[in-house]
Amino acid sequence: MTGNIIGERLILVSFGESHGKCIGAVVEGVPAGLSLAEDDVQRELDLRRPGQSLIVSQRRETDQVEILSGVFQNYTTGAPIAMIVRNEDKDSSAYKDISHQPRPGHADLVARQKYGGFNDWRGGGRFSGRITVSFVMGGAIAKKLLHECLGVQVMAYSSEIGGVSASSVAIEDVIKKRYSNEVRCPDSEAAKDMIQKIRMAKQEGDSLGGVVECIALNVPTGLGEPVFSSLDSDLARIILSIPAVKGVEFGSGFRAAKLKGSENNDQYAFSKGMIMPTSNNAGGILGGLSNGQPLRLRVGFKPASSIAKKQRTVDLDTNEEVELVVAGRHDPTVVPRAVPVVESVVAFTLADHAIRAGLIPPVLKR
Amino acid sequence: MTGNIIGERLILVSFGESHGKCIGAVVEGVPAGLSLAEDDVQRELDLRRPGQSLIVSQRRETDQVEILSGVFQNYTTGAPIAMIVRNEDKDSSAYKDISHQPRPGHADLVARQKYGGFNDWRGGGRFSGRITVSFVMGGAIAKKLLHECLGVQVMAYSSEIGGVSASSVAIEDVIKKRYSNEVRCPDSEAAKDMIQKIRMAKQEGDSLGGVVECIALNVPTGLGEPVFSSLDSDLARIILSIPAVKGVEFGSGFRAAKLKGSENNDQYAFSKGMIMPTSNNAGGILGGLSNGQPLRLRVGFKPASSIAKKQRTVDLDTNEEVELVVAGRHDPTVVPRAVPVVESVVAFTLADHAIRAGLIPPVLKR
Amino acid sequence: MTGNIIGERLILVSFGESHGKCIGAVVEGVPAGLSLAEDDVQRELDLRRPGQSLIVSQRRETDQVEILSGVFQNYTTGAPIAMIVRNEDKDSSAYKDISHQPRPGHADLVARQKYGGFNDWRGGGRFSGRITVSFVMGGAIAKKLLHECLGVQVMAYSSEIGGVSASSVAIEDVIKKRYSNEVRCPDSEAAKDMIQKIRMAKQEGDSLGGVVECIALNVPTGLGEPVFSSLDSDLARIILSIPAVKGVEFGSGFRAAKLKGSENNDQYAFSKGMIMPTSNNAGGILGGLSNGQPLRLRVGFKPASSIAKKQRTVDLDTNEEVELVVAGRHDPTVVPRAVPVVESVVAFTLADHAIRAGLIPPVLKR
Amino acid sequence: MTGNIIGERLILVSFGESHGKCIGAVVEGVPAGLSLAEDDVQRELDLRRPGQSLIVSQRRETDQVEILSGVFQNYTTGAPIAMIVRNEDKDSSAYKDISHQPRPGHADLVARQKYGGFNDWRGGGRFSGRITVSFVMGGAIAKKLLHECLGVQVMAYSSEIGGVSASSVAIEDVIKKRYSNEVRCPDSEAAKDMIQKIRMAKQEGDSLGGVVECIALNVPTGLGEPVFSSLDSDLARIILSIPAVKGVEFGSGFRAAKLKGSENNDQYAFSKGMIMPTSNNAGGILGGLSNGQPLRLRVGFKPASSIAKKQRTVDLDTNEEVELVVAGRHDPTVVPRAVPVVESVVAFTLADHAIRAGLIPPVLKR
Repeated sequence: MTGNIIGERLILVSFGESHGKCIGAVVEGVPAGLSLAEDDVQRELDLRRPGQSLIVSQRRETDQVEILSGVFQNYTTGAPIAMIVRNEDKDSSAYKDISHQPRPGHADLVARQKYGGFNDWRGGGRFSGRITVSFVMGGAIAKKLLHECLGVQVMAYSSEIGGVSASSVAIEDVIKKRYSNEVRCPDSEAAKDMIQKIRMAKQEGDSLGGVVECIALNVPTGLGEPVFSSLDSDLARIILSIPAVKGVEFGSGFRAAKLKGSENNDQYAFSKGMIMPTSNNAGGILGGLSNGQPLRLRVGFKPASSIAKKQRTVDLDTNEEVELVVAGRHDPTVVPRAVPVVESVVAFTLADHAIRAGLIPPVLKR
Repeated sequence: MTGNIIGERLILVSFGESHGKCIGAVVEGVPAGLSLAEDDVQRELDLRRPGQSLIVSQRRETDQVEILSGVFQNYTTGAPIAMIVRNEDKDSSAYKDISHQPRPGHADLVARQKYGGFNDWRGGGRFSGRITVSFVMGGAIAKKLLHECLGVQVMAYSSEIGGVSASSVAIEDVIKKRYSNEVRCPDSEAAKDMIQKIRMAKQEGDSLGGVVECIALNVPTGLGEPVFSSLDSDLARIILSIPAVKGVEFGSGFRAAKLKGSENNDQYAFSKGMIMPTSNNAGGILGGLSNGQPLRLRVGFKPASSIAKKQRTVDLDTNEEVELVVAGRHDPTVVPRAVPVVESVVAFTLADHAIRAGLIPPVLKR
Repeated sequence: MTGNIIGERLILVSFGESHGKCIGAVVEGVPAGLSLAEDDVQRELDLRRPGQSLIVSQRRETDQVEILSGVFQNYTTGAPIAMIVRNEDKDSSAYKDISHQPRPGHADLVARQKYGGFNDWRGGGRFSGRITVSFVMGGAIAKKLLHECLGVQVMAYSSEIGGVSASSVAIEDVIKKRYSNEVRCPDSEAAKDMIQKIRMAKQEGDSLGGVVECIALNVPTGLGEPVFSSLDSDLARIILSIPAVKGVEFGSGFRAAKLKGSENNDQYAFSKGMIMPTSNNAGGILGGLSNGQPLRLRVGFKPASSIAKKQRTVDLDTNEEVELVVAGRHDPTVVPRAVPVVESVVAFTLADHAIRAGLIPPVLKR
Repeated sequence: MTGNIIGERLILVSFGESHGKCIGAVVEGVPAGLSLAEDDVQRELDLRRPGQSLIVSQRRETDQVEILSGVFQNYTTGAPIAMIVRNEDKDSSAYKDISHQPRPGHADLVARQKYGGFNDWRGGGRFSGRITVSFVMGGAIAKKLLHECLGVQVMAYSSEIGGVSASSVAIEDVIKKRYSNEVRCPDSEAAKDMIQKIRMAKQEGDSLGGVVECIALNVPTGLGEPVFSSLDSDLARIILSIPAVKGVEFGSGFRAAKLKGSENNDQYAFSKGMIMPTSNNAGGILGGLSNGQPLRLRVGFKPASSIAKKQRTVDLDTNEEVELVVAGRHDPTVVPRAVPVVESVVAFTLADHAIRAGLIPPVLKR
């Protein structure tokens, strides 16, 4: 029951439901003295906002953030920062059936069982992807902290959608091009194929899964607290909190299972007087600690559960098997909109650990 | 700095170093009234003990557990249960170089940087796989709790080593055969090939990675607290705390990224009056909550970093590049010994969530 | 920096500033199925609302609560409940000087030092008594939970103001009369004297301290988790979080320091077949656990720091000593308005512990 | 059930029972690079050791500490520090009755009820004052950290025993004389009277309560995290965790309830160019934050519950009222031995907050 709070020194409290009054967040532990305006958060929210193109949900939300506390004269005060986005275009009519006809692949049934039917089932309620609005609110602050205090850059992109994989992408391209197309894939050729696949899936009333890759640059050495709050442990935890994620891997990841130690170990050499690993199979994390190399991780998303195709389900009122067509305005794939969400949660965890390590002080220099 | 404690209602505190006096654990939150003896813990420790066969480390440790507190007249009292295993066969001589010649793939360098050289580097110190002794201590209690209170069974096995994969294994075979051979693989044909691969790697002074699969049966519905303490979030966190793990996936996992919604969704039907999903791509978790189906997850392990093959590294005293042959008594693969460790951490997290959900009471019935 | 969150299974997140947009709370861990409306919270807020009589602050706030999340069809859902009260009558002009002329007895100076001047100093910002609005929000839910699930009643009253003490009050009088006069003292004779004292202090531009006593009836046996989350430990912590509190004592409290063991021990006898202590010097807590007797505690409040009398302070801009008359609309004593606040935090902690002990289930019966 | 762990960045885990194998502690979060030997802890333990004079318990325990982990080459490593003291002189025979004849003033009855009779009742088990051995273990490290990093000195002394109060004591006398007599009272005249009172109580088979006062010097400004982890909140919590404590007050404390604002406010002046309050009624804490003045607090202890005088209790086996004479080797007053315990918990909390505030770094300078 206490799963809506995460973080140790930088803490994110998430609240709100898909079709309730609002989605909100309280961010606790933000150092005093960070310049912060609603625009800083809005910019990030706009990246995950629905209704922006044909390939994503047509729910129209302006997602305007209001900062309720913790900012004074344009700077953070050290007090908790509460933020809300009011829900506007909540059309619950399409969901009238799901209270008794649970959607396959959704939490409808299990949520009803866990909460004795008291849960807000409209639009999935607390189990909707819409709650990631609060992740992005927290991430916006974290990104700003990381960038201004430590020069850290956190970037994600779609590396695979519907079986189409981006070819290996240079970091400069990730920096420049990741938001240059609808699917947030810096490989523009692959992007075209992805879009084509998405269009086809949409026509079929079906949905596609994919993989989001995330890179963080300039991560200071030594972030992570062994053993249970190792950097990869904490990242894995928050990443698996994103709806639709089914797996996460770091560096060579599952591929490492097939390698030999002599192939997978990153050997050390000197480069311009600095110790440099000759490869980065570790993905920037050794022994649970950041090692100064680029952080690299991959997140596997399942295809969106809400599809227009007929599916079998059961009716909890009549105790009969029924056929279900999920109405509502859904994304044929959540991957492109998940890109800023992955960035947000990775940034949040890095910022928390940077504060834990004393690398971001409680009061920033003016 | 506070990463050695995990859990919310059932809490594991881990302490000790590879070549220090002992490895220990404090388990807090165990309900009163669980019958518990040192044998219950010893049995599990014996499964991960080194020195048992040619294909694992030849370090000889009897790993005898001593329970220091929390048990009275053969029952748990509700007070914290402290346990230690004294280290016996700690031959630090082989490690004399690693204080200044960091081993590739190990935490030697980054630990030295993080702790200003104060860390106990002998045998990797706190970053050694040996600390998983404390995971197994906690897991032994968790397994007993789960089994006696809820009938839950947590079972892991090697599903891939050195590129050799077990074929799909029936659950009965997992139950019966998973500890029937040295590699803990219930597919005995694959097991033979795995052993062959391990022997070869050992001869070459190299090491192999692999995948451990874990299944839990009879998991009650509704475990997990949305959103950040969802069952998969908490499992991912503790699994990534196991040294050498580079990835985790649930149910169809990364494979889901290539599927369509219509293929990946588990549709609902009635079976003998019970609602039953017609497949288990969810791996037993929907919306972060256990859904009553078998829990299924896969853990990717990198090849052990300590290898006898020559590797490049740097000497921190002389600032020169050097060649390193890692001495010591290491496993050519950690996968078989990781099997009980994965079982332990999965069981620990399930037990914690069962307590959180009120399914295991603070005092057990006599 | 992470002090704005309290509780273990029932969690209160407090945010907002005295002269910011709002005061708010997120209550996490409320079981599903509690009937809850804004009126339930409003009723409690009205008890601490300013502007109600001549003897309290003339700040006019309607303190209308808005529930933002966690309630659906008039019942709690198990999701976090966010609530806000917008600040209306925030006249910061009276505070224009305190940013550089710290008020004696207030946190102005130390807050400026801790937060590098970034703190919101208007009206004391986050250090104002106004933040207890969020305590009452949380307390309102806790009281309802305790009452409906366990029949627990939490009642506080003014037992001393300005040196005037209430005589020993029968529990029935506490139940009936504690809110029957402006000073919330069930001894109506003492109440008259208290009011007289307060009027005099007001005329002198001075303020008065006092003591709030709190009683809780029907507290189940065994609440509290030894040793650091003992019931008195957790109560003491949250009570000392109330601004202006300088001490807390349980049962015979500091008076016990002067007693002998034979006088202070509560001996056991049978009464109608039940084991009954023959006295309650323990105040309902033994060994940190509730023992089934009425919980009794006393909270010492200092006189309000904001007084109209001239005081010495320093000017941080000019580095000169100056004389200060604190303007603003302040209470000559905070004690009467603190009564519902003490009730709230005691109820909150009891409800948290009742959930921890499994006495309030995750889903309430319909 | 999870009350045996306290602290946020510096964490104390307490385990062990009065008549079990040992009392132990794990201290997590100690920065790397603190010089630490068993002697450093032993010195503090010796101050609370029983059997040292006629006026305290005659239980003979050498209380030899063994450090099990976290120290390497005489310095802390950043890893958790586990410590144990084996129990030697545990004569449980005197306690044979308390399993069914609960001692008045003790937790015997309520512990039995809470834990369904599974609790280790020998010598009070986990509810014994002996568990404060673990508090002192943690305090020893905290004191060293505070002293070496920040010059903070934490000193407690008996200010009242059996109604005899020490007269106001100069800080220099507290520093020099607090451990100069058996009762740990720097006022040697009062000390004589206290000893006389204790002897009389002992002869009568009775016990005495008292007050321990604690002062901390050189506490940096700004420790404490508003609002629920304010410095006084966290101190109150840990102090109430000490067995037999019934109250705590800060600065003018309960006396403030009788003062006017103009009397109690500490006004500001300049002294040698520094802002100095002209009094310290705040006891060094304003708005929950340390303000640079000496921290002052008082702790009220009840008379020890174990007395040789006949008391009424009930027999849980026969359901009859009985007369009880508590055998065993008890202190006629716990106050003198509580002095190092109060120092320990205050130091622990200050060190935790100093780490939280970034004033003690994760790695100490060599």
